[in-house]
Amino acid sequence: VSAFFTVKWVDGRVRMLDQRALPHETNYLDFGDYAGVAGAIRDMVIRGAPAIGVAAAYGLAVTAIHSQARDASHLREELREAASVLRAARPTAVNLAWALDRVLGRAGDPELDTVEALQEAVLQEAHAISQEEVRASLQMGQNALPLIPDPAKILHHCNTGSLATVEYGTALGVIRIAHEHGKRVHAYLDETRPRLQGARLSAWECKQHGIPHTVIVDGASGHLMRTMGIDLCVVGADRIVANGDTANKIGTYNLALAARAHGVPFYVVAPSSTIDMQTPHGDEIEIEQRPAREVTHVGEVQITPDDTPVLNLAFDVTPAQYITGIITEAGIAYPPFEQSLAELMLRVRRES
Amino acid sequence: VSAFFTVKWVDGRVRMLDQRALPHETNYLDFGDYAGVAGAIRDMVIRGAPAIGVAAAYGLAVTAIHSQARDASHLREELREAASVLRAARPTAVNLAWALDRVLGRAGDPELDTVEALQEAVLQEAHAISQEEVRASLQMGQNALPLIPDPAKILHHCNTGSLATVEYGTALGVIRIAHEHGKRVHAYLDETRPRLQGARLSAWECKQHGIPHTVIVDGASGHLMRTMGIDLCVVGADRIVANGDTANKIGTYNLALAARAHGVPFYVVAPSSTIDMQTPHGDEIEIEQRPAREVTHVGEVQITPDDTPVLNLAFDVTPAQYITGIITEAGIAYPPFEQSLAELMLRVRRES
Repeated sequence: VSAFFTVKWVDGRVRMLDQRALPHETNYLDFGDYAGVAGAIRDMVIRGAPAIGVAAAYGLAVTAIHSQARDASHLREELREAASVLRAARPTAVNLAWALDRVLGRAGDPELDTVEALQEAVLQEAHAISQEEVRASLQMGQNALPLIPDPAKILHHCNTGSLATVEYGTALGVIRIAHEHGKRVHAYLDETRPRLQGARLSAWECKQHGIPHTVIVDGASGHLMRTMGIDLCVVGADRIVANGDTANKIGTYNLALAARAHGVPFYVVAPSSTIDMQTPHGDEIEIEQRPAREVTHVGEVQITPDDTPVLNLAFDVTPAQYITGIITEAGIAYPPFEQSLAELMLRVRRES
Repeated sequence: VSAFFTVKWVDGRVRMLDQRALPHETNYLDFGDYAGVAGAIRDMVIRGAPAIGVAAAYGLAVTAIHSQARDASHLREELREAASVLRAARPTAVNLAWALDRVLGRAGDPELDTVEALQEAVLQEAHAISQEEVRASLQMGQNALPLIPDPAKILHHCNTGSLATVEYGTALGVIRIAHEHGKRVHAYLDETRPRLQGARLSAWECKQHGIPHTVIVDGASGHLMRTMGIDLCVVGADRIVANGDTANKIGTYNLALAARAHGVPFYVVAPSSTIDMQTPHGDEIEIEQRPAREVTHVGEVQITPDDTPVLNLAFDVTPAQYITGIITEAGIAYPPFEQSLAELMLRVRRES
């Protein structure tokens, strides 16, 4: 297990590792109300689709635990209010909405007819979501093992490790679990502009776990594939829609195009909580646009001239045709994804 | 004409605009010997293939002008020594070697039999190279005009403007000349990690010239092509070899792959001094590897954990098959490039 944690329930508050200060400082911040949790998600104290799902669930738990509501119905009203604020914190990752809906669904159980029972149920549901994310990470790593050659040069985008989930992670979890199984993996880490989650966070996690790694600029991936023999690419996801189109950190699509040009397998790794069967096509995914400052500055250093116009899209959509397979805790989906994802989600629902 | 200059002969010294301090400070540095010029090229005070060719030529001029040699033969010896130091400053761009060989060739004229005659000839040859680069830039812009729709969304990588040449530039010169001809161009500028020449230098030049522009991270180019209708890509070159394979700033190849996937024309813009007919294939181009610090730090801000392993390749090679055309001052070469480049270079030699 890691020597740090990403998000945790501590003494009636939500404690998060402030990822904006990594890798140089390891600061934990505590949030005691949903507005604080929503702000932390929006300001990217915590990021990564599964991690923000868990944080949002705890955002409802913290609302419930500290509520002064006089009965269960009023508490339900407060939870719905909190959920609408949390839901708006970031639009693209579906795990946020998924986790909120799941906790609200549990809270809707009419048998929970006292404030105390409702408080207890909401907190337990948030804990369950957190624990299931860890189990899902471990299972994704297991499921991916047969796909990882030994040795393997693996290209990875953004951060998808413990910091993006609760423990282990999605795509970086796959690399870590292969490493723990003795496979000689080498992770080539896209630095992932603008927020540099690869250079800052994935490099930090690889260092902690002794995984051999090399940081590259995002523009170097095609050249590496052309000249150095990359065996596969693994990326996470913020939203996978019914046809397999996948929203993920900006730069993922360029990586997928390079992989296709070189015949390099390109895998998306994500828990089934990232799959959004309600949205048929990637073009319908809302792409978050973030402040220009993320591009114009690194820390306090200004890069561009004053007032340079910037387009800062946080995510892109990789069309399903570029995806070799989608690795989930419930199995690996292969094209055609309309069918394989539908079957996979049926299985998930039956088993839950 | 720009309100700044990139490299200029001033009072027996080589004056360069220190591009490392842009866009925030406009500092000019003077160099009075070849070692200083070579250091400035290596440390990227000046960069861009045509600009470093001109700077190197002036590096020989400064050597000649201040020489204490007692006869022409000793001065030729000094020039050869200076050229070998200048040549080693950066390995990938061919313009550096081309300019040095041209000045050495001129200095080899046996009619130049006094130190004074040789000094004069070397300086005149350096001036001629500088002036020809300006003329070449203007002609490239003219040649490209019919290829630029109106309006046009043009994706551009790195910096290829006045700062990379002497005035106007190659790919950015094409955009600027189209703008000056009244075409409604919008430049989408790859920021171009690691040294951010797009965000720092191209944005600064576009601002100076009133060219509408937007800075994007390098990973966003494919998404822009997929969703926003980019009309063409233009890039410069550090070396174009006989089969058309082109070495240029890292990230160029990923851009070319994205362009191909979306049917977007991908043009290389470079003076014929960038064409290296002696090298048959791109795999034979030496790719400069630069210090890790360019990736691990932005200014004084450290991004990665301490001692993070980095692979910092300054250039990549875009295979000819991804290039729509090569726009030079002597015309536009189209595939098959083996033939069109050979014809173009014959024409250049006949006319010179």
